[in-house]
Amino acid sequence: MSILIKNVLLEGKEQNIYITGNKIESISYTGSRGRPETEFAIEGKGMAAIPGLFNAHTHAAMTLLRGYADDMPLQEWLETKIWPVEAKLTEQDVYWGTKLACLEMIKSGTTFFNDMYWHWGSSVKAVAETGIRAMLSAVFIDGFDTAKSKEQIKRNKALYEASKKVPQRIIFALGPHAIYTVSEESLCWTRDFAEKHDLLVHLHLAETTAEVESCINRYGMRPVEFLDSIDFLNARTIACHCVHMNRKELELLKKHDVKIVHNPVSNMKLAAGRLPYDDLKRLGLYSNIALGTDGCASNNNLDMFEEMKIASLLHKAFSGDPTSMPAKEAFELATVNAAKMFRLNSGVIATGKLADVVLLDLKKAELVPNHNLISNIVYSANGSCVDTVICDGKILMAGRKVEGEEEIKEKAQEVAYGIVK
Amino acid sequence: MSILIKNVLLEGKEQNIYITGNKIESISYTGSRGRPETEFAIEGKGMAAIPGLFNAHTHAAMTLLRGYADDMPLQEWLETKIWPVEAKLTEQDVYWGTKLACLEMIKSGTTFFNDMYWHWGSSVKAVAETGIRAMLSAVFIDGFDTAKSKEQIKRNKALYEASKKVPQRIIFALGPHAIYTVSEESLCWTRDFAEKHDLLVHLHLAETTAEVESCINRYGMRPVEFLDSIDFLNARTIACHCVHMNRKELELLKKHDVKIVHNPVSNMKLAAGRLPYDDLKRLGLYSNIALGTDGCASNNNLDMFEEMKIASLLHKAFSGDPTSMPAKEAFELATVNAAKMFRLNSGVIATGKLADVVLLDLKKAELVPNHNLISNIVYSANGSCVDTVICDGKILMAGRKVEGEEEIKEKAQEVAYGIVK
Repeated sequence: MSILIKNVLLEGKEQNIYITGNKIESISYTGSRGRPETEFAIEGKGMAAIPGLFNAHTHAAMTLLRGYADDMPLQEWLETKIWPVEAKLTEQDVYWGTKLACLEMIKSGTTFFNDMYWHWGSSVKAVAETGIRAMLSAVFIDGFDTAKSKEQIKRNKALYEASKKVPQRIIFALGPHAIYTVSEESLCWTRDFAEKHDLLVHLHLAETTAEVESCINRYGMRPVEFLDSIDFLNARTIACHCVHMNRKELELLKKHDVKIVHNPVSNMKLAAGRLPYDDLKRLGLYSNIALGTDGCASNNNLDMFEEMKIASLLHKAFSGDPTSMPAKEAFELATVNAAKMFRLNSGVIATGKLADVVLLDLKKAELVPNHNLISNIVYSANGSCVDTVICDGKILMAGRKVEGEEEIKEKAQEVAYGIVK
Repeated sequence: MSILIKNVLLEGKEQNIYITGNKIESISYTGSRGRPETEFAIEGKGMAAIPGLFNAHTHAAMTLLRGYADDMPLQEWLETKIWPVEAKLTEQDVYWGTKLACLEMIKSGTTFFNDMYWHWGSSVKAVAETGIRAMLSAVFIDGFDTAKSKEQIKRNKALYEASKKVPQRIIFALGPHAIYTVSEESLCWTRDFAEKHDLLVHLHLAETTAEVESCINRYGMRPVEFLDSIDFLNARTIACHCVHMNRKELELLKKHDVKIVHNPVSNMKLAAGRLPYDDLKRLGLYSNIALGTDGCASNNNLDMFEEMKIASLLHKAFSGDPTSMPAKEAFELATVNAAKMFRLNSGVIATGKLADVVLLDLKKAELVPNHNLISNIVYSANGSCVDTVICDGKILMAGRKVEGEEEIKEKAQEVAYGIVK
């Protein structure tokens, strides 16, 4: 398939973007020149082209639990509300929950998400059908039980084999949940298997003070120190949250080129703490940081526009410095930095890059006037400003319409009501 | 005009809302029973009815400066960017800027705003034409200059007289800008004139540490103490921001039943500080607090859904308590508390109340599933979830369409580019 986007605002001027297959073949500055072989033309006048946004940490199917339990202390929320319901989730539940998440992400301009959840096969199916790009890991929890560790290892080996047959835009990763739910033995297996097969490793790290305390009690070290002590950390490690770390731990992240996902809304909503953003920047880790929504139970949506704004507001407010995380940085956390993290040839609109392109409707009242597009994107827009979404060279949304939308919402609502009954 | 909204979700069940004139005449629980005399019927199936939201502090025409200057230290931002441009604003500029703001607010479910800006007559005209409800005050600044004080007093007397001829849904208020821009003499005149004519008084208070310091230097007291010393404070005082106050000042606010507007996004973006929300609650001032966006230059939109969410996140994150400002409170700050503040018979959907009604489209992906409507409204929704807006018994938006929208955006964009040239 080939697509021509005509007269779209890109880098301050109207340009044409020509897509063939799943790549941007060329960008021309020459007005309305068409191409005879173009199968599909989009009039981009009055719209701006931006790279599809990256949601670097979520649990997609938790859309099913949106609004189910809020305004509670973290541990009580997990133990009395979230975990009991999650224990009952079926493959069908996760399939429809993930489809709803994919729909919501497409409608708000996200073309890639990094997921960790139960029933990996259901997530694969949902992603394959909706056309979005994703990195999918299964939740690996052994509860320090040797039998469960063996079972999880066996399962992840099987998933790795299965992942060779899924569409190329779906990346398999290992998902050791966290150091307080996964044994040292399992973490070491993860480390070795990931090394052998060049896999990315997705985990929660230093999210709460309880995690830090339990780590000190169990291993006599803080979380990042412990992972360093077992040679777990490297450039393929994707550590989410990273809220409670001391200076030494920050330097260990730097030393091992660890990738860091910031989840401002979730951290604020659960009062978990704050990523030391300015400290990480000073250490030279800026380009290692991306942005994620976390699951819908602690957010409660998947809108990366909102996440960019709140990230910037959070650091300005806490640091007392209104120049902290300017709009351009928030935007890069959601695009180019994330592309680097997931080793994808995307995150910018340029010739030769993957055709993951989002068109913003500049006629939305909240985007008028357009003194500064990046400011408008980060501080004024929300997901509803997205008009068109192209992922992997295919049009997933045009004029805000997504195929099969009604069925997804109906089925997801139905299974959601079923699981909380 | 009479309007029947059929089968709309209200308080957990489908109901009919019948509006005549500018009031809700009745709410019935009896299915689809129509009324022969109804001039306009709206099918509300799949939608939820909520009161129109209140934006309790803004500078509407600053939509023109959206994205013009961000990520700067507050004083530099004001002195080098905002004030020089504002000094050049014409009546036409403010008219189109306010119209754009009204459009944006209607599109995001706000039916009332409290404004303070230049060229009062232009704001009145914009509000009158767009059909929204508002309290409008002119910026009263004398810079401690006696001649200017006299001029401002004369002007406000004239505006008060003029306000008797404007539509009833427009309320006139006095707008002494702040204690660092208005002399004691002018503040005392404001106090007396407001008392005599039973007017609300809208001012910025304790927004920055610089304001506190200048007040101590000038008067030997902190801001709230100073206002108390000149008998300025009472139940008609609407104090915006209230970020830097000590215990004694909080108690003075309580003693005088002062109304307080919280502007979380603006305060975070400018790193100004944080409203001591939980302290105010403990003092029994909860129902005196409402929520505002502030102007678009420091937000940069007018979406009250976003404001509710960020308010709640801010207090959870800063207090370390995830139960701080639960969804229901954030919603009340934007509805019933504000109605009390502005002495309006609204803020809830009930018989006899003003017909300021908003219908939310429950089929938006981010509102599925609907385990808890208030949670979804505060944590998941944004302004684009609004389908229909009724204000003062008139339909201002139906199916997201507002009359004259295109012209407003074009003209506002045109004048916005003109003023920054």
